Amino acid sequence: MPRIGIFDSGVGGLTVQRAILEALPGLETVYLGDTARVPYGTKSAEVVTQYSLNNARFLVGQGIDMLVVACNTASAVALPALRKALPIPVLGVVEPGARAAARASRSGRIGVIGTQGAVTSGAYQRELLRLRPEAVVAARACPLFVPLAEEGWTRPDDQVVRSVADRYLAPLRAERVDVLVLGCTHYPLLKGAIGSALPGVALVDSAEAIADEVRQSFPEAAGPGTAAHRFFVTDTPDRFLGVASRFLGRPVAGAEHVDV
Amino acid sequence: MPRIGIFDSGVGGLTVQRAILEALPGLETVYLGDTARVPYGTKSAEVVTQYSLNNARFLVGQGIDMLVVACNTASAVALPALRKALPIPVLGVVEPGARAAARASRSGRIGVIGTQGAVTSGAYQRELLRLRPEAVVAARACPLFVPLAEEGWTRPDDQVVRSVADRYLAPLRAERVDVLVLGCTHYPLLKGAIGSALPGVALVDSAEAIADEVRQSFPEAAGPGTAAHRFFVTDTPDRFLGVASRFLGRPVAGAEHVDV
Repeated sequence: MPRIGIFDSGVGGLTVQRAILEALPGLETVYLGDTARVPYGTKSAEVVTQYSLNNARFLVGQGIDMLVVACNTASAVALPALRKALPIPVLGVVEPGARAAARASRSGRIGVIGTQGAVTSGAYQRELLRLRPEAVVAARACPLFVPLAEEGWTRPDDQVVRSVADRYLAPLRAERVDVLVLGCTHYPLLKGAIGSALPGVALVDSAEAIADEVRQSFPEAAGPGTAAHRFFVTDTPDRFLGVASRFLGRPVAGAEHVDV
Repeated sequence: MPRIGIFDSGVGGLTVQRAILEALPGLETVYLGDTARVPYGTKSAEVVTQYSLNNARFLVGQGIDMLVVACNTASAVALPALRKALPIPVLGVVEPGARAAARASRSGRIGVIGTQGAVTSGAYQRELLRLRPEAVVAARACPLFVPLAEEGWTRPDDQVVRSVADRYLAPLRAERVDVLVLGCTHYPLLKGAIGSALPGVALVDSAEAIADEVRQSFPEAAGPGTAAHRFFVTDTPDRFLGVASRFLGRPVAGAEHVDV
């Protein structure tokens, strides 16, 4: 049975794992959340690349056939180093997300939101312009969206949520984008509020886009299955376990602590 | 000339250094911001203690006479381990902050706000009850205040700031506290908004409280001076340098990268 490794800076990558398992229930997974060093989105490309290599080497030691980089920031800055260092295929969320957005846009005006690190790297912007050189791409970092999602403050009619979403997204509304890439694993939890602030704009969730690509590599895992799933974290597991089930959409019974 | 070391998880500890240098202009300082692993407030006591010991050992190697733990979370969970491991005096922000609050309260109803880690540890609550056993202490974690301060969204009349402050502080208003401890180095930047949400409540800034205690140890450094100040960070220095001057209230010309 194929086994894939997934890492993220913390718990957010479980939304990517969720999309992958909905597409491929027969896949074995090993998840690593780097909760001792979370978040990556505020840190330099050098540090994020170093942490990503640490995480990847641990997962390769777990006998995986493919590595999925669920973290948008790591996907944006560390993919070349990971592909060079590892003996297995490496997929990030940026390329599939950009591909889905480039396909979905009619007007060619595309918005990208993400962490400071992902936006500053320019990775989504470059990939979108490679796919559609005539596109107008408007990118914006939204640092408050992650703590909002972690607080569970996500309802579109919540006054705090609405005012933060409007502050960040008004410039993208002014750019008249018709597609918006949710370039951070936490943002799908805020889909309702983001959609309210940008009516008529199609939201691209990179998690769903990457699940499509993983499916092409392992068609045999699309059937029903009772595959094994293991979870590792670099901080103590309690806080991870407290929110993991909500992010994964199914029970997470336990997680093991590991130093990477 | 006396030299003190100061560490924080990131840039916030510069508000503590600022208060200390206003009281003691003749003091030499070595500052370490652990920007590669920031923040501490969401992490376990075990991990925060390990990182604090790494930081402290680096600073002791710089020939300091005293260590100031500027980070509230580290002060709340790591002080016993630091005092055991180090050959020099160690001051945290929790004890001075609690002492100032216990002195300032008339009604004995005291509020504490901080990171999840600082609040969960119960350190402020324990210290306040040790000093005033009959006090009623109400504590609340305010995870969105740090990203608000880092975005520069701090004005009391800003709609986002006002709605977040009101959400977090309404329960403390209902508790009728007359003093509030700002238990995180970022929160003094939001003093205006916090004060608007809690009219008539005295705000205790732990940075000022710890500066008083440092002054008692080094009275000779109270005179004017042109002391040397060095800055180290564990991530690349550019983002730190981008905001450091605003937090310190004076120019920060350079910072060196270090692995601890």
